[in-house]
Amino acid sequence: MSKPAPEIVETLAAIVGAGNVLTGDDLASYEQDWRGRARGRALCVVRPGTTDEVARVVQACAAARVSLVPQGGNTGLVAGSVPDASGAQVVLSLRRMAALRAIDAQNMTITVEAGYILQALQDTADQAGFLFPLSLGAEGSCTIGGNLATNAGGTQVVRYGNARELCLGLEVVTAQGEVWDGLSGLRKDNTGYDLRDLYVGSEGTLGVITAATLRLYPKPAAQLTAWVAVDSLEQACTLLGMAHQHLAAGLTGFEVMNQFALGLVDKHYPHLRVPLWQQTAWCVLIEVSDAESEAHARGLFEQMLEAAMEQGVIADAIIAENMRQAHDLWHIRESITLAQVEEGFNVKHDVSIPISLIPEFVRAADAALSAAFEGIRFVNFGHLGDGNLHYNIQAPPGIDAKAFVAQHEDQVSAIVYDTVSQYRGSISAEHGIGELKLHKLPQHKSATALALMRSIKTALDPHNTLNPGRVLSA
Amino acid sequence: MSKPAPEIVETLAAIVGAGNVLTGDDLASYEQDWRGRARGRALCVVRPGTTDEVARVVQACAAARVSLVPQGGNTGLVAGSVPDASGAQVVLSLRRMAALRAIDAQNMTITVEAGYILQALQDTADQAGFLFPLSLGAEGSCTIGGNLATNAGGTQVVRYGNARELCLGLEVVTAQGEVWDGLSGLRKDNTGYDLRDLYVGSEGTLGVITAATLRLYPKPAAQLTAWVAVDSLEQACTLLGMAHQHLAAGLTGFEVMNQFALGLVDKHYPHLRVPLWQQTAWCVLIEVSDAESEAHARGLFEQMLEAAMEQGVIADAIIAENMRQAHDLWHIRESITLAQVEEGFNVKHDVSIPISLIPEFVRAADAALSAAFEGIRFVNFGHLGDGNLHYNIQAPPGIDAKAFVAQHEDQVSAIVYDTVSQYRGSISAEHGIGELKLHKLPQHKSATALALMRSIKTALDPHNTLNPGRVLSA
Repeated sequence: MSKPAPEIVETLAAIVGAGNVLTGDDLASYEQDWRGRARGRALCVVRPGTTDEVARVVQACAAARVSLVPQGGNTGLVAGSVPDASGAQVVLSLRRMAALRAIDAQNMTITVEAGYILQALQDTADQAGFLFPLSLGAEGSCTIGGNLATNAGGTQVVRYGNARELCLGLEVVTAQGEVWDGLSGLRKDNTGYDLRDLYVGSEGTLGVITAATLRLYPKPAAQLTAWVAVDSLEQACTLLGMAHQHLAAGLTGFEVMNQFALGLVDKHYPHLRVPLWQQTAWCVLIEVSDAESEAHARGLFEQMLEAAMEQGVIADAIIAENMRQAHDLWHIRESITLAQVEEGFNVKHDVSIPISLIPEFVRAADAALSAAFEGIRFVNFGHLGDGNLHYNIQAPPGIDAKAFVAQHEDQVSAIVYDTVSQYRGSISAEHGIGELKLHKLPQHKSATALALMRSIKTALDPHNTLNPGRVLSA
Repeated sequence: MSKPAPEIVETLAAIVGAGNVLTGDDLASYEQDWRGRARGRALCVVRPGTTDEVARVVQACAAARVSLVPQGGNTGLVAGSVPDASGAQVVLSLRRMAALRAIDAQNMTITVEAGYILQALQDTADQAGFLFPLSLGAEGSCTIGGNLATNAGGTQVVRYGNARELCLGLEVVTAQGEVWDGLSGLRKDNTGYDLRDLYVGSEGTLGVITAATLRLYPKPAAQLTAWVAVDSLEQACTLLGMAHQHLAAGLTGFEVMNQFALGLVDKHYPHLRVPLWQQTAWCVLIEVSDAESEAHARGLFEQMLEAAMEQGVIADAIIAENMRQAHDLWHIRESITLAQVEEGFNVKHDVSIPISLIPEFVRAADAALSAAFEGIRFVNFGHLGDGNLHYNIQAPPGIDAKAFVAQHEDQVSAIVYDTVSQYRGSISAEHGIGELKLHKLPQHKSATALALMRSIKTALDPHNTLNPGRVLSA
């Protein structure tokens, strides 16, 4: 990559207006990732307002061989949307492109620009009488463009799939600065290669997503939540099978939390009054969405939980009495992340494993880590319905958490990822690769897959100007 | 492409055994497509029995620059799996690779080889206590490899999606003859580009699918079918919205049939006793799958149909009394295809349109065709729930059907496809491009999309040896 000519900043200002090109020292919110794991330096931040402006920005940077880092809400967890330390990269912020382009009620689709905030999208869908089911912690500030570029997951994947499954069409600016209008409200279209899914999850390395057409769903008449104590992950998996059988597509959430994770919530937020957690090694949160009524949902839950109790699958259970109590139960689940912060640094992982192998995986990983680090503790929770665990490692009691992480993170993660690979899992279930996991990938993905990926990258972005050094090494 | 050395046949025999290399005049079932639209000539048919043999076959052909045409059940509708007329292409039949590799009940997945027959896969899933929901006319002879290579659709897409949505992982032999083991029982895996979905629907032009891991679903406790008379496509669309709202994920089928299509069934198969068809311009077949009971399904249907009747959305309706009657109603729907054969040649189309635009599209296409060909008749039916119509054109009464098709097919299709493009639809909803629609694509797909597709093809199959001249021109 040649050193960028400073005139690129002026060229960009001519395209988007000087007020939409940011330079100087006040760019921290664009240059630093949400977790504070990476801090780069940008040549500038450019904020186009239209697809045409994005295309011209990409063309100008391609011509000058200046690399671009597309950025939405900058809430990613793998440092995939911040510039490197060179000071030579341009951050392409999509935040100004936040128009609602269309709602098509009969087609059950919505078309929005990339900078549309996820929560706003949920709200817009709701006001139109529909559900947009993508839901995750950062929804108040993440953008749908970023959600698609990273194929975001979240809490309702067991029913509705990841961001990929919610997307019917994209508008993308290619690495050459051409606009591909692949916006489509079609549920079936077999006219060639699946460009849409190639861009989804490519983390801004193959093109810049500028707009998307997304699926909407009917709003459920009622949602109900149960909180269940189970003795083991095996029983949680058995319960998951029963939930699929009894609730079918009504099953919209199936989360597990181990005792240590819930203990952290209880310790740091005692007012949340975590139920049942002292009884068993694991608790499960189950959500059902019902097209008929709350009474119908409750009936289904009662049938299932009675059967599970009779068969000795569960130790105890409560069903939320009302929406408020359901909300409180979800709030406990979501407070695990913050309780970890209160407790001090830990080593985080976002892995997936075939569901049938999860109990064995956890036993193996726990054992390997305990052998390497005596007294180590496991903050283990996640979306069991999708085979996705946030398998996080806390320092042994009495040991400085920050120092432990600084010293042992690499070794801890190596043990976790080796065990994941042994059980045919993924080292990044929903967070992506970005820069943080880049160097881990070659040990955990086949050389054939990596070679195919590199062929595609070279074909679509031959000068490697789009988010270089992310997903694939530069 | 250089003229193939005859020794390639011997080389292939050394890999798969002489008995699995077929030559000579008796290759019609491999050389001719199901609809009899294309008849080529193969250098030979090679029938490998293992992934390793497929890899070595591909390597040998790549080295000799001999092109390969992958073939499953050879039931495709766009001449994508038969050789060209050169006599220089090798047909790679996957039919011998038909092993069941694994069923993982707790993970709700099944892994089979490419040559597994779709109906056998449904049966295997059923015996294991699950539903594999892909269902289409050719299921008795098509293979899952072919279903994935063409991203097959069928009758339950409204709930379960196309073949793409049912696939969690693939094993593929690349154009270089390497094996990519992307078999995965994972529901979440964000470790790089989506190779799986790139191969799905690529019609054998980017790689050879040798095995797949597929999603299984809980078996519904009951399925029920209703047959509804509606005055217009507008009302059919309104009813579809009501069905989504009332039945939610229980809605597993929503088919429309126009009066002329049902009249053909009545004329050629009077014993099927088509209900309600003389009352209104359209009939709708709705299927609900229920996790609870037939009584529950019936209750939901009755509620919905009563509401629709009160609102004047439907003219009349019957709910099947039992499974046998439900089966009979589906049989009528499926008999449209054969009734068309009885009536004589017609011009077939497989298009999709955003659902909200379908009534307008049909009006516009009907008008344009009627203006061009007085008295022309429309066999219009399809999967309205997916926006997918089989919009077929029958010669005016009294005119020789075969002669009409021979003379006017191109013009008829041009009018249909131009109208499809005007309404942002797809000229191939579920059948693919193959060779038959190849020359239509450039007028109906953007130059940017085609250029991206060609970049990918060149990157993954630089010598153009995999199914050349399909999807993209050679």
